[in-house]
Amino acid sequence: MPRHVFDLKPRWSDMDAYGHVNNVTWLEYLQEARVDMFHAFSSQPGGGMLAEGVVVARLVIDYKAALVFRPEPVRIEMWISRATSASFTLDYEALDRAEDGSEVRYVTAQTVLVPVTLADGRPRRMRPGEQEVLARFEDD
Amino acid sequence: MPRHVFDLKPRWSDMDAYGHVNNVTWLEYLQEARVDMFHAFSSQPGGGMLAEGVVVARLVIDYKAALVFRPEPVRIEMWISRATSASFTLDYEALDRAEDGSEVRYVTAQTVLVPVTLADGRPRRMRPGEQEVLARFEDD
Amino acid sequence: MPRHVFDLKPRWSDMDAYGHVNNVTWLEYLQEARVDMFHAFSSQPGGGMLAEGVVVARLVIDYKAALVFRPEPVRIEMWISRATSASFTLDYEALDRAEDGSEVRYVTAQTVLVPVTLADGRPRRMRPGEQEVLARFEDD
Amino acid sequence: MPRHVFDLKPRWSDMDAYGHVNNVTWLEYLQEARVDMFHAFSSQPGGGMLAEGVVVARLVIDYKAALVFRPEPVRIEMWISRATSASFTLDYEALDRAEDGSEVRYVTAQTVLVPVTLADGRPRRMRPGEQEVLARFEDD
Repeated sequence: MPRHVFDLKPRWSDMDAYGHVNNVTWLEYLQEARVDMFHAFSSQPGGGMLAEGVVVARLVIDYKAALVFRPEPVRIEMWISRATSASFTLDYEALDRAEDGSEVRYVTAQTVLVPVTLADGRPRRMRPGEQEVLARFEDD
Repeated sequence: MPRHVFDLKPRWSDMDAYGHVNNVTWLEYLQEARVDMFHAFSSQPGGGMLAEGVVVARLVIDYKAALVFRPEPVRIEMWISRATSASFTLDYEALDRAEDGSEVRYVTAQTVLVPVTLADGRPRRMRPGEQEVLARFEDD
Repeated sequence: MPRHVFDLKPRWSDMDAYGHVNNVTWLEYLQEARVDMFHAFSSQPGGGMLAEGVVVARLVIDYKAALVFRPEPVRIEMWISRATSASFTLDYEALDRAEDGSEVRYVTAQTVLVPVTLADGRPRRMRPGEQEVLARFEDD
Repeated sequence: MPRHVFDLKPRWSDMDAYGHVNNVTWLEYLQEARVDMFHAFSSQPGGGMLAEGVVVARLVIDYKAALVFRPEPVRIEMWISRATSASFTLDYEALDRAEDGSEVRYVTAQTVLVPVTLADGRPRRMRPGEQEVLARFEDD
């Protein structure tokens, strides 16, 4: 499948005392994008449980360029880069794509996500149907 | 030197809809701890510039346990794990240390930090005095 | 003029531990709406200074109904209800308007805003052109 | 009783692009102070229900002076100014009190709070014991 795309509208309050979207706020952006992608999971047969009970185990983010507030949304592209029976990895790129094909990349990131049982929040093995759902979100 | 310690007081509003301190908020905690450590830098001869013009290039965080709001502070320990002429790495552990020596670790993290010139925000080489300041904050 | 309208997209992270958009977050919403309205001021002749140097002196908000996260935007309508030579009052209504004419009102609010000089942030008198700009944003 | 006091430690991230503690963040401060006061309610006989199920119906805040980030806490004083069978009003003053008796006042505010039933979140009448708890928190 092509990458999952989420357009995030910056808020003026996302800027810190340096006048840039704060480092921490970028992770809020990725979280919002992830919530949207999980919504896409849940619309796939067998993906419902995945959308509800998943925990972030690890997060890696590289900051490439600073973003100043503007009302226009910033594009966040996401795809599954790895899926095992115990966890999966979600990759992100946040960028502006101009019509002439040029782009400005703000951050790239990865989160390692672990499915948990809803009752007690403990890690659980992935179910076969779930791995198939995830496979559909790999980058072409 | 022993690790630099910052006690962060959670806020009720740090909890998300799951009733836990949100993943993203943990990075706000680390940011607050870092501001405090930079304050410690600036009290060292030659460390002033370091405190003012530094940019986060990369961040890695591992989530170990969930934290629910409580008024008591959570302890964040920090130390420099690596310093080159172009960047340095700050390590963090957020944890509760009980008097009996037991501990609950919430997150461990690393940030790669790059000194920049104040005028234009562009990366610059570390100055010799600065590397010495950083060396003082290595973990014993 | 008709009311100025700003469509604000909720974020998942706007919810608090009760699973509602937090009381405080509503004021962030109003702030974003105000930034947008100030942008509209600055596009009017004589409204530029008004857009840049204004301080919130007082805020009153009434909470009518709780909002749970949904990806669809919530509508914020704004208008100037009062303008003197020293301050002006901006009114807000945040609501959903259904196509059948029914509505759900979430909050109503007012902010008293004071123009300041950019150099020192001290209150200043309104200029005649500014009062005319404001008059254009009264509710019909 | 004397006023209930809560010392709130500012965070660097509380500052907005103007370098001040943001208007909205002040309401987060008041919320934290209120959570602390509700904790005090719940330690009083008959105050438990009050601590758990209360909703903000109205909020009024006056901004007196800007606060720039500093690690030292800001003092928030609170007291009950009014209590009826349907709601009560909590007043706040956020200020620095110097040892020589001088003070800098940042904000004053009031929230009207309505007790609700836990099951459905609907307004309920105050119980006699609750009004007595509230009476104890009036300003001397």
